[in-house]
Amino acid sequence: MPDEPSPIQLTPIGYVVTRYAEAAHAPSQSSENHRETGRVVLYEHFRDGLDGLDAFPYAWLLTWLHAQRDEQTVDLRVVPRALESTGQTRGVFATRSPHRVNRLGLSLVRVVRVEGSTVHFTGVDLVDGTPVLDIKPWFASTDSPPEHGDPTTG
Amino acid sequence: MPDEPSPIQLTPIGYVVTRYAEAAHAPSQSSENHRETGRVVLYEHFRDGLDGLDAFPYAWLLTWLHAQRDEQTVDLRVVPRALESTGQTRGVFATRSPHRVNRLGLSLVRVVRVEGSTVHFTGVDLVDGTPVLDIKPWFASTDSPPEHGDPTTG
Repeated sequence: MPDEPSPIQLTPIGYVVTRYAEAAHAPSQSSENHRETGRVVLYEHFRDGLDGLDAFPYAWLLTWLHAQRDEQTVDLRVVPRALESTGQTRGVFATRSPHRVNRLGLSLVRVVRVEGSTVHFTGVDLVDGTPVLDIKPWFASTDSPPEHGDPTTG
Repeated sequence: MPDEPSPIQLTPIGYVVTRYAEAAHAPSQSSENHRETGRVVLYEHFRDGLDGLDAFPYAWLLTWLHAQRDEQTVDLRVVPRALESTGQTRGVFATRSPHRVNRLGLSLVRVVRVEGSTVHFTGVDLVDGTPVLDIKPWFASTDSPPEHGDPTTG
């Protein structure tokens, strides 16, 4: 059992292009803004990794939420949006708050089309320039609880 | 627009305890093994971040797939499991292959209970000792396509 974690280094594969320059103006979740279009622009040498993505209607963007304020220490308790009126806190791992220990974002987007090293998508909740760490196709069977999964897809 | 990506450093918040010592023996997806139990053990100082997680039936584990072979260069084209009989390749970002540019894993698990800094879950697809980078509650509204989302939950 590991006693002390070793840091892990990741390299962005590209970045997101949206009309939101600031986190405060971007929607909290892509599901709240599922008609607006954005783009993922991959660095050119990762282009071949997109082959076949356009066969999938939906994909996950795993991102680095760079536009969040850079705190020295991250609060382990946050007030989730649903509890803002009461001011009650929850542990950050029980929320989708962007102020996380590791500021990883997880956004489900609709794949509109792939053109060269660019993925056009709808469902925008990301600030312009957000680094993208990974893209994964969405599978109903894998990405839904057993009682929600549609056995005819994914 | 960023021309060159800066590397990003993450710190594991804990690790997974399962009965799989090797990647070759672990199920490919948690949905294929949704009854087996595993644990996430957080490093003690992250314990408060779990407060309230037990109110959610499902959660995402974002992990670092450390047990994959460490290649100098990652292939951008892989043969997905569904195409193994044909040998056809797809871009890695159009697959859930663990051999990725950034070896991020995304596993949907059922939260059984939270005890101190330990999360007991079912739905095991991870090798023992896999570093955990983030835990996020699963929301039907956010994590399902619009036509799959159940408006009564999440």
